[in-house]
Amino acid sequence: MNINLKEKFNKISNYWHPYIIGELNDNFVKLAKLNGELVWHSHEEEDEMFVVLSGTLMMDFIDKTVTTKPGEILIVPKGVQHRPWTNGEEVKVMLIEPKTTQHTGTNKVAQTVENLEWI
Amino acid sequence: MNINLKEKFNKISNYWHPYIIGELNDNFVKLAKLNGELVWHSHEEEDEMFVVLSGTLMMDFIDKTVTTKPGEILIVPKGVQHRPWTNGEEVKVMLIEPKTTQHTGTNKVAQTVENLEWI
Repeated sequence: MNINLKEKFNKISNYWHPYIIGELNDNFVKLAKLNGELVWHSHEEEDEMFVVLSGTLMMDFIDKTVTTKPGEILIVPKGVQHRPWTNGEEVKVMLIEPKTTQHTGTNKVAQTVENLEWI
Repeated sequence: MNINLKEKFNKISNYWHPYIIGELNDNFVKLAKLNGELVWHSHEEEDEMFVVLSGTLMMDFIDKTVTTKPGEILIVPKGVQHRPWTNGEEVKVMLIEPKTTQHTGTNKVAQTVENLEWI
């Protein structure tokens, strides 16, 4: 039941590809390495929680950009357009979000991960 | 939407008292400082996630004790009897669990926090 995040991150080599490491009732716990930017999207029914473990997560919203560092968390409420990006460094995040959450919402692009895998 | 965990922990002076810092659909995100031990209990319908931020969290289960350190997470499945304790040091944890979760399950004791507050 104990999950070591570093061991799990060692299994991830691609960016913007979340992998499942645990489940919590109707939610998945996921890890992802980020570098560059993802597309604008929203999740109509799902709040999304980012726990930043290393690096600085930049999150664009329509009216502002929010910077989140290790020791901080960011909760993106359902229905809110957002675009995560990084500022020239790799960022490691843990995500907690409902199992129904689609990676890039209804905005399907080449980066979109359709089928989630456990690691 | 950005939440600084250190700032929130600075507002907590009592042990084994979880405070709410965020919500995520049907779940609360909580912080707690731990020192000593809590009672044996289980949550019949709720999985419970512990993110250890400092110190070493000890968790007794019926058949084993699991040690969780910073960089590790522990998910206690619903229905599983458990007892959290610490080994002579303060432990800081972030909890993610359904809003319906009772602090010490059905095992109500003096330590039990009945009414959760936001900080």
